[in-house]
Amino acid sequence: MILAIDVGGTKMAAGLVGSDGTVAFSARVATPQGADAPTLWKTLDELIEPLSEGVEGVGVGCGGPMAWPDGEVSPLNIPGWRGFPLRARLAERFPGLPVRLHNDAICLAVAEHWKGAGQGSADMLGMVVSTGVGGGLILDGRLVNGGTGNAGHIGHVVVEPEGGPRCGCGGHGCLEAVARGPALTAWALDQGWVPGPAAQMADAGPRFGPDDGAYREDRAVTARGLAADARAGDPVAVRAMRRAGRALGIAIASATHLCDLDLVTIGGGLSQAGEPLFGPLDEALREHAMMGFARRVKVMPATLGQEAGLVGAAALILAGESYWTPATSR
Amino acid sequence: MILAIDVGGTKMAAGLVGSDGTVAFSARVATPQGADAPTLWKTLDELIEPLSEGVEGVGVGCGGPMAWPDGEVSPLNIPGWRGFPLRARLAERFPGLPVRLHNDAICLAVAEHWKGAGQGSADMLGMVVSTGVGGGLILDGRLVNGGTGNAGHIGHVVVEPEGGPRCGCGGHGCLEAVARGPALTAWALDQGWVPGPAAQMADAGPRFGPDDGAYREDRAVTARGLAADARAGDPVAVRAMRRAGRALGIAIASATHLCDLDLVTIGGGLSQAGEPLFGPLDEALREHAMMGFARRVKVMPATLGQEAGLVGAAALILAGESYWTPATSR
Repeated sequence: MILAIDVGGTKMAAGLVGSDGTVAFSARVATPQGADAPTLWKTLDELIEPLSEGVEGVGVGCGGPMAWPDGEVSPLNIPGWRGFPLRARLAERFPGLPVRLHNDAICLAVAEHWKGAGQGSADMLGMVVSTGVGGGLILDGRLVNGGTGNAGHIGHVVVEPEGGPRCGCGGHGCLEAVARGPALTAWALDQGWVPGPAAQMADAGPRFGPDDGAYREDRAVTARGLAADARAGDPVAVRAMRRAGRALGIAIASATHLCDLDLVTIGGGLSQAGEPLFGPLDEALREHAMMGFARRVKVMPATLGQEAGLVGAAALILAGESYWTPATSR
Repeated sequence: MILAIDVGGTKMAAGLVGSDGTVAFSARVATPQGADAPTLWKTLDELIEPLSEGVEGVGVGCGGPMAWPDGEVSPLNIPGWRGFPLRARLAERFPGLPVRLHNDAICLAVAEHWKGAGQGSADMLGMVVSTGVGGGLILDGRLVNGGTGNAGHIGHVVVEPEGGPRCGCGGHGCLEAVARGPALTAWALDQGWVPGPAAQMADAGPRFGPDDGAYREDRAVTARGLAADARAGDPVAVRAMRRAGRALGIAIASATHLCDLDLVTIGGGLSQAGEPLFGPLDEALREHAMMGFARRVKVMPATLGQEAGLVGAAALILAGESYWTPATSR
């Protein structure tokens, strides 16, 4: 069994994953908000304690940025950890065992490639569209890390080069600045969207992303609510989903040309938005991906659910020949 | 010695390349225009005949598109070859020897990585900006092929998503549609550019790209002439180079985010355009590549000259562990 860990700003999850990718057991705990580094570590340590017996390795997905492959993490949404040596601390905690850590969006892409919608694809981009927009790149059958472990940042491919919205990265016109859930709802509200009955009902379910709450004025103002209103025909909501869909299609066309992809998987809350998002996505993709080789690219929803992060983290150990290549490649 | 071959719409070149990448001897011949398949083959066969004795392998760069790695070529600018089995014919011609064929833009990128400006870079994009805009991608120290050998098509990354110019690929707003030499001069003429004395003088030298002639109304109407006029301060020429430079910077920012690059090399005629191109390129790149990891990317002119295509073709054999990976990866 592999101990898999998934560290995010809202929750920390841990699980035991078998060599076939099955999650035998998992547990999760809220990430203590505003906590200092020792408190955060203690929370994680207590979470993994009951799962530690007899494990053969530790795989970790964590929010970025981070120094990779060293695994010193500074997750944007966990201010108490800045340059925290998470990998080293876990290596001390599990002497003699392999401990591998990568970006959480990369773990999701790895999971889809290993056991989800991407099985058998040699060249795929696994995307997450939620509070942020991230991804991981598998080319020629192997995870691509890039020079600093940051390959796959599809969220910062430029889709509105001149005059596009400011992005959290400091740039402007990035896919993430257009298509992240909170940006979408903010744009829709600005255009006069008033959440309708569909949005109110949609929002009874779980949230899209861990941070949606911070952007809501009321409970229905979520990307999920917006998507529901679009499906119900609300014209502003339709335009908002169209705007996000086209931005996704343009970025996917660029990625397909550059990396000769055969598949793009889309996970995260917005991947549930249906036709109002995927129609315009496909339209923009087909407009822009006209070369013979690019036309073959398929866009599919991710198929692994909540536990994908744990599966991908475990794959860093269980399928390291494909997904853990920092040492052999340099 | 390796026999290296570079097949383009204007010329065919062949050379003998030593294991250190030195071109010991080379020869070139004009590609017969409008010729049929046997005539084209005969021209190539006569070119390589005197170089065939005792070679240990054959590396070929050829204009795309092609079926790869089989090496059935249909070069856009050589209408007489459609689905021509160039690799198979060469394999018959050189029984028992390895014969490897790749896209000519990829060979140029490989050459820069192996022996040029990209030496020591683990993650680079080698670009060519000339009559077309192409490239090759080296990630984690190895050439990335993509599913059909077409990875590196930076020319079709989208830089003007809505309302951008039509591209030869059938799409619109591609980098190539904006920044290829003929598109630049056409745009400038449309904006009222009248080639000045600088353009007239610049054009006394060799041409930018093999096909420029087809787009010229007079001898000074070339991207080279336009760049010279921009350096001399012609306001329309300055705007034209700025337009191309910004488009390049935007596409490079997107590629850097997606692939976590440390280096981009730029070869081809426009790479000689100097500050009027590289100033706006750098400005747009810095505007859009703000994430910590992306800021480290360097953009440099390619350093290998005319014979880069032969060097890269030879590298498919001489450094196959890095640059020829179709079999091992699938």
